[in-house]
Amino acid sequence: MFDELLPTLPCETDAQVNLKASALNHRDLFITQGLYAGIKIPCVLGSDGAGEWNGQRVLIYPALEWGSSPNHQGKHFRVLGMPEHGTFAEQITIPKANIYAMPEHLSWEEGAALPLAGLTAWRTLMSRCQLQPGEKVFITGIGGGVALMAMQFALASGAEVWVSSGNAQKIEQAKALGAAGGVSYRESDWDKQLKQQSGSGFDVIIDSAGGDGFALFPGLCNPGARIGFYGGTLGKVNGLSLQPIFWKQISLLGSTMGSPTEFAEMLKFVEKHQIRPVVDCMFPLSQGNAAFDHMETGGQFGKIVLQNTL
Amino acid sequence: MFDELLPTLPCETDAQVNLKASALNHRDLFITQGLYAGIKIPCVLGSDGAGEWNGQRVLIYPALEWGSSPNHQGKHFRVLGMPEHGTFAEQITIPKANIYAMPEHLSWEEGAALPLAGLTAWRTLMSRCQLQPGEKVFITGIGGGVALMAMQFALASGAEVWVSSGNAQKIEQAKALGAAGGVSYRESDWDKQLKQQSGSGFDVIIDSAGGDGFALFPGLCNPGARIGFYGGTLGKVNGLSLQPIFWKQISLLGSTMGSPTEFAEMLKFVEKHQIRPVVDCMFPLSQGNAAFDHMETGGQFGKIVLQNTL
Repeated sequence: MFDELLPTLPCETDAQVNLKASALNHRDLFITQGLYAGIKIPCVLGSDGAGEWNGQRVLIYPALEWGSSPNHQGKHFRVLGMPEHGTFAEQITIPKANIYAMPEHLSWEEGAALPLAGLTAWRTLMSRCQLQPGEKVFITGIGGGVALMAMQFALASGAEVWVSSGNAQKIEQAKALGAAGGVSYRESDWDKQLKQQSGSGFDVIIDSAGGDGFALFPGLCNPGARIGFYGGTLGKVNGLSLQPIFWKQISLLGSTMGSPTEFAEMLKFVEKHQIRPVVDCMFPLSQGNAAFDHMETGGQFGKIVLQNTL
Repeated sequence: MFDELLPTLPCETDAQVNLKASALNHRDLFITQGLYAGIKIPCVLGSDGAGEWNGQRVLIYPALEWGSSPNHQGKHFRVLGMPEHGTFAEQITIPKANIYAMPEHLSWEEGAALPLAGLTAWRTLMSRCQLQPGEKVFITGIGGGVALMAMQFALASGAEVWVSSGNAQKIEQAKALGAAGGVSYRESDWDKQLKQQSGSGFDVIIDSAGGDGFALFPGLCNPGARIGFYGGTLGKVNGLSLQPIFWKQISLLGSTMGSPTEFAEMLKFVEKHQIRPVVDCMFPLSQGNAAFDHMETGGQFGKIVLQNTL
């Protein structure tokens, strides 16, 4: 049975990367909890990986077979790490096309924190919401890996960023990174507080919670605003009024992952602006279960990284 | 008091158009019912007008001061016909910038049926949803003026069009105009029937109803689909799941009216494809109240036109 966990032999178009670090995503946790479609086991999890290949420091594009359209993934698209073996390993065999030079200013841990969160944030904020310099952005659930990358990309683009969190300390941490301010979504009038504090509406809102709070977003929007979302952990949206959406010409834009082209654009932007992904904490790969336990508490601010200490 | 109903004297940048026909929009009905924001009376209603100016057959762009952004109307934008006097009249004084040559193949009545409905449909379908030839389109509530214009534009673009209505006869009328088929939204499994009949998903959905049926749209969508909406007469949307929206990279795009640039594009397209707006019936201007009564029944298929018979 454990033979299935061994990497397949690489062919000419494959690379065998010696992994130095990887990072957890909620997807990994959902799979261990059985909360993901089409789970096949045994399988090495992990979508994010930084390592060495051919004497170079490389990052791995965290998916396979995006497909031919820039607008959406194709039928054969898979996120790396289930069904294919992923990056929670010492080595990975991966198509050479998935290998990209790692921005030089990043440590192994920062590099490993970047791929899936950075790609998801990039596509949502840049490709889908078409963020413009000087715009005002509201990002919910700050502390999550994608939300933080979206904040860093928006700030580097010259946007003004406001955040929300259920944890006052995370709002302070976001402000230390450049956010203009934030509100607690645990307060029933958070939208009014945000409107009052920020002084005007928003051009872009980035969310992964959904739920009934989502229905308040159009009221926070400026004309022509874009609401980008890549998750819906709080469930279905109720009470969504279409009137402010069509009258203000608002766009609600679903987004998931991103294409290899977007991955390359994102890496170039990270290099240009010397962006360092926020790492919450690190565990040795051998203590992966402790890393999962830490993710389950939800207290992290940034990515949880696994280090290969061999 | 009635002095207020007289047109103001035209200045150099104004045109005085001798109106030959006008058309009703639901906006006019909502204003007579007190169901519109910022109602000021007395006021001549009417946004759609066709007439003669300077020896030319002209159509009137049905709004004032769109503003400088192509993405949304500006702060001073107004739809024609409240607060400014509108087109249910024999003459109108209007900025010359609002005057466009009427496509030659149109009668006065067809011309009057075009401006507001055509503009709204054009922006929703073309500017917002970026319809591509060969795509598959689903248009709800066929029979409404905007829905019919969207269908005619989509068909002329080489799209396959499916429709819904609460009235079987309207579906047959839509098929006679080129629709591939349709379903009754009064049947509880209309979405399954539509899926089965049409054989695959949709690339574009055009809606003005909203309500709980809206939450079924993402399930009908192909990856990369766009859902454009310009109304929400059935009220708020409940039970909207974000998962299919972000996984399929779907865009939900609110749209209202359109810019002068879009109006000119729309007229050019109508001329090129020799499109004739569907006129449900005509009333003399002097029997305007009967026209409103007819609109209230909801039985119409196409625009209700008022003729100047003087």
